[in-house]
Amino acid sequence: MLVNGNPRRTIWPAPDNTAVEIIDESRLPHEFVTVLLENMRDAEHAIRSMQVRGAPLIGVTAAYGVALSMKHHASDAALKATCDMLVKARPTAVNLRWAVEHMREFLLPLPAEQRGEAAWNEAARMADQDVAINYSIGQCGLAIIRAIHDEKQSQGRSGVVNILTHCNAGWLATVDWGTALAPVYAAQAEGIPVHVWVDETRPRNQGASLTAWELAQQGVSHTVIVDNAGGHLMQHGLVDVAIVGTDRVTATGDVCNKIGTYLKALAAFDNGVPFYVAMPVSTLDWTLQDGVKEIPIEERGEEEVTHLSGLCEDGQIRRVQLTPTGSHAANYGFDVTPARLVTGLFTERGLVAANADAIRLGLS
Amino acid sequence: MLVNGNPRRTIWPAPDNTAVEIIDESRLPHEFVTVLLENMRDAEHAIRSMQVRGAPLIGVTAAYGVALSMKHHASDAALKATCDMLVKARPTAVNLRWAVEHMREFLLPLPAEQRGEAAWNEAARMADQDVAINYSIGQCGLAIIRAIHDEKQSQGRSGVVNILTHCNAGWLATVDWGTALAPVYAAQAEGIPVHVWVDETRPRNQGASLTAWELAQQGVSHTVIVDNAGGHLMQHGLVDVAIVGTDRVTATGDVCNKIGTYLKALAAFDNGVPFYVAMPVSTLDWTLQDGVKEIPIEERGEEEVTHLSGLCEDGQIRRVQLTPTGSHAANYGFDVTPARLVTGLFTERGLVAANADAIRLGLS
Repeated sequence: MLVNGNPRRTIWPAPDNTAVEIIDESRLPHEFVTVLLENMRDAEHAIRSMQVRGAPLIGVTAAYGVALSMKHHASDAALKATCDMLVKARPTAVNLRWAVEHMREFLLPLPAEQRGEAAWNEAARMADQDVAINYSIGQCGLAIIRAIHDEKQSQGRSGVVNILTHCNAGWLATVDWGTALAPVYAAQAEGIPVHVWVDETRPRNQGASLTAWELAQQGVSHTVIVDNAGGHLMQHGLVDVAIVGTDRVTATGDVCNKIGTYLKALAAFDNGVPFYVAMPVSTLDWTLQDGVKEIPIEERGEEEVTHLSGLCEDGQIRRVQLTPTGSHAANYGFDVTPARLVTGLFTERGLVAANADAIRLGLS
Repeated sequence: MLVNGNPRRTIWPAPDNTAVEIIDESRLPHEFVTVLLENMRDAEHAIRSMQVRGAPLIGVTAAYGVALSMKHHASDAALKATCDMLVKARPTAVNLRWAVEHMREFLLPLPAEQRGEAAWNEAARMADQDVAINYSIGQCGLAIIRAIHDEKQSQGRSGVVNILTHCNAGWLATVDWGTALAPVYAAQAEGIPVHVWVDETRPRNQGASLTAWELAQQGVSHTVIVDNAGGHLMQHGLVDVAIVGTDRVTATGDVCNKIGTYLKALAAFDNGVPFYVAMPVSTLDWTLQDGVKEIPIEERGEEEVTHLSGLCEDGQIRRVQLTPTGSHAANYGFDVTPARLVTGLFTERGLVAANADAIRLGLS
C-alpha cells in the first residue's frame, strides 16, 4: 500500500539480500522510520518490542529471522536454537509458531550448506503468499461490502458503507493489503464509497495510531473513536458492518483477537449489525474447541495501561502517566469472541460460517 | 471521605462563610489543589472548566454560586442574571438546571435583604441532603455486596467481592460518599473485603484519574483496566457485580451514563453478572420512555479523543497527541443502556427494579 504516495510492503529484502528492512511501527503515526534487521536477534527484538506486530507480519518476520540465522549458522543445533528463541518472542501468536515450525520442517531435511539460500527463498515465498492470501480475503469481504452498498442505495439511502474495525488488522499487520482492511481497500479500488470507524484500541492504541495512519495514507475516509463508543454508534444505525482480524480461531469458530473485540461483537449482535472476522486459514487452531476456556490470554506489563506516549506540542514524543502513582493496572492482551456472535469468516478460500461443520467442510 | 488521611467533602464553606472551597478535580490525580470560590463568576468558572464535575456536585456548586451572588446583589434582576449565567455553564447537565431553578424559586418570594443568608443556608442544606441521599444509596447497595460476600464464602471461595465500575461516580462526583462507590465504602466500613476493577473510561479517563485516586486515598483495593477489558474479566468469573452511576434514567428504566456503559452491561448480561445502577431519585426523568431514541447525547470536542494529558517524567503535566495529524475523531459523551440489561437501581429509597411499573410504584 501507499506511504507518502509510494507503494510499500511492511517487510522487504535489503538490496544485497543480506538483511531485511521493516517499518518500525512502534514509531507510527508520528514518525515514519525503517529499520534494518541484520540477524536473527534483530528479528527477535523486532517481534518482541513490537516494531512489527500483527500475526501474519510476525510470522514472515520470524521466517526471515530463521533465514538470517541460517546464513551464518546452518547446523541442526543452530536451527533448533533459532526456532526455539523466535517462538518465545510473543506467546499468543499462533502464526509465529506456525511460521517457525514451517521453516524448521522445511529446512531440516536439507543439507546445512543449502539451508541459507533455501531459507531466504522460502521466507520470500511466504511473504508473497501472505500478500496473495490477503488479496483473496479482500475479494471475499468485498462481496459483502458491495452487497451492503447496493442494498443501501436500493433503499434510497446514502451508498456509503460504514465499517467499524478494532485494533489494526490492516496492511501494517501483514506484508500487504491487511486482513480486516483488505476488503476496505478492495472496495476503494472498485469505487464503492466507504467510511471506517476506527476504535482507538487501548491500551496500545493500534487503531488511533496505525489504522488511522494507514487509512489516511490510502485516502480512505475514517473517524477515530474511543473503544467505548461502538455500542452507541450501532444503536443509532451508524455502523453497517464490523470487520476485525484475529490471532487465533478455534475449530468451532471462537475468535481470539485484541482485547475489547468481544464487547463490540456483543453490541453488533444486540443491534443486528453483521460482525465478520477476516482470517488467513493458517490462523485456525484445529486443536481447540472452546476458545474462552482453552486459549491462553497474554498478560502484558501494567505500564502499557498506566502510561501512554504521544506527540507533544514541541514536537517531542513523550510518555505520560495517566493513573495515580501507586494504583496498579491489569493488562490482558486479548479476549475471545464466542462463535455465536460471529456472522462469518472472510478467508482466502471464501466466506465460511463460524461453526465446526462449516469450518471442517470449508477449510480443512 | 479521606484525602491524605483527613476527612473532606468536595465542597465546603470557608471559615468566615464568605466563600466556599472546592477540590480542583481537573488537577487530579497528579496534584491535590483546593480553590476558593469567592463569587458567582468563580463558581461558574469551576463548573465550566470542570474543576468540579459529577451531576450532584455541579448542582451544589451552582447553589453556592447563587448564594455567593446574593451576598452582594440580591435584587430580582440580580437573581435572574445569576441563575441565567450559571445554567449555561454546562448546557446538558440536568442537575445543574434543577439546582439553579430550585434556588430561584426558593429565593424569589423572600425580601431581598433576607436572600443572602437564606441562600447560603439553603445551599448548605442541599449539600447535606446530597450526603444523606448518597449514604442511603450506599446502604442499599451494601445489602447486595454483603449477599455476594456471604454466598461466595458459603461456597468455600474467597469472600472478596470483585466490583467493576465505569467512569467516576464516587465521592468526587458528589459532596460525599458518591453514588456507585457509596456501596463500596459502606462495605469497607463493615469489614467486607472488596476489590474494584476501575475502567479507565476514555476519553476523559475519569476512572484512571479520579476513581483510582479516591479509592487509593480510602485504602480500597483496586486495579485499573482499559475499557476493553471488562468483557474478558466477566467471561472468566473475575467480576461479581458491576455498579455504575447515571446522568439520567427514563421512567422505563433505560440508563444514560458515560459512553461505554452499554458495552459493559451487554457483557454482564451475557455472563450472568448482576449489573446495578446507583442513582439519586432526582436523576429520574419521568418524561422519557425510550432512552435510546429520546435522550440527546452530548457530542464533545474531538481533541478529547485525539489528545490526552498526563504526568511526564520531569514532573510536568503535558498534553500529547495520539492520532495522526489530520485524522478526525468523534466524541459522544454518553450512551444509553436499555433497562432489559439492568439488574436493579440502587436508590435512597431502596432497591428498585429497572422497569416502568417498579419505578412508578417505588419512586413516584
